[in-house]
Order: sequence, then structure tokens, then C-alpha cells
Amino acid sequence: MADLYHPDAAAIRLVDVLAALGHPVRLEIIHALAGGEERFCGEILPAAPKSSLTHHWRALREAGVINQRRVGRKFYLTLRRADLDTRFPGLLDLAFAEPARGDAPE
Amino acid sequence: MADLYHPDAAAIRLVDVLAALGHPVRLEIIHALAGGEERFCGEILPAAPKSSLTHHWRALREAGVINQRRVGRKFYLTLRRADLDTRFPGLLDLAFAEPARGDAPE
Repeated sequence: MADLYHPDAAAIRLVDVLAALGHPVRLEIIHALAGGEERFCGEILPAAPKSSLTHHWRALREAGVINQRRVGRKFYLTLRRADLDTRFPGLLDLAFAEPARGDAPE
Repeated sequence: MADLYHPDAAAIRLVDVLAALGHPVRLEIIHALAGGEERFCGEILPAAPKSSLTHHWRALREAGVINQRRVGRKFYLTLRRADLDTRFPGLLDLAFAEPARGDAPE
């Protein structure tokens, strides 16, 4: 299996990050990683179809939003919080301020 | 022709705004409207295919990013800057801080 592509921090583009975050499932994934610790793929949204999640991991990774690390047959994910906070200050805070499912506020 | 749908400010959802802004042409449109004045559709990206722009106007309008007003056969656009700054402080500033074409900074 080829190495997993991750853009360098300086090469992360806002348009790609916005597109990656502009999906309700991917916003939920970001919320699940907000604590900062590395999490196993299978722990995050276990009820969602695996093929769909594979697509979302890649979209987030290629945009520079998450790091994805393979250990055997498992993938571990972390949010690239420091890189994103440096490149686009406040963007993740906006995402975390909204409900994970993107529902209208009460 | 039906009225043009615009969400109320309180109903604007972050996920929709992120998805709307997460496209290089739509980021360019936002840059063209950054001054705050109303602009005629035909003035903005005059070289782009009209059918493609029509799709982008609608994506931005339905997400709550722009106001679109019809006068005869022409459409006039304004950025919903106050609404967006209230709902998602700093988000437009991040978009304006990046080059319109999403190119990597020099």
C-alpha cells in the first residue's frame, strides 16, 4: 500500500479545508477528534458505513485536516490542530462551536 | 419565476457555509463582493461560463452567503457580511486573507 499523502502545513489551502469541513459527517469526525488524542478509525462513528468513512478520512487527510497513521490493518487518526490553528486561526473553534450534526441551534 | 430562497440569518448553518465557500470559483466571487457594494452578476468573473456561475450563485445564496436580487432579467449580488460576521465571527476574514484563486502564498 502506498504511503498516505499528507500535505505539509505550509501547503494546506483554505479552499480545501473548507470543502473538507463542509460536510455533516466530516464535521462530526472533527468533533470526535477535538480532544486532541489519537483515535482508532473504528471508534469514530461506528454506525456509519465503512466505505463512506474511508472516503471521508481521505478527504480530511488530503486537505490537511487530519493525520492518518496505519498500524497493521488499522488506521489511527489525529486532528492537525496546531497546523490548522497556525494557518487559519479560529477556523476550528468555529467548527467546535457548532453542534456536531449541524442542526440549527435551539 | 419563484422567489429566490434566502435563509434567515439565524437559520444559516456552518456546514452549508463551509461547503459553499469550499470551491475556488466561489471563493473568487466572495473576494469580488468583499467591498460590500452590490454588484451585477455579469460584472463578476465575466470570463466564466454563465451556466456554471448560475449554479454558484445559487449555492452561495442558499447557504446564506450572498443576497441575490432580481431586477428585470438581471441579478444583483451582495455579500451577507453582517449576518455571517454575527453567526461565524472571523470566517470571512479568513477567506479574505487568502489569495482569491487559492494559490499557495508566495
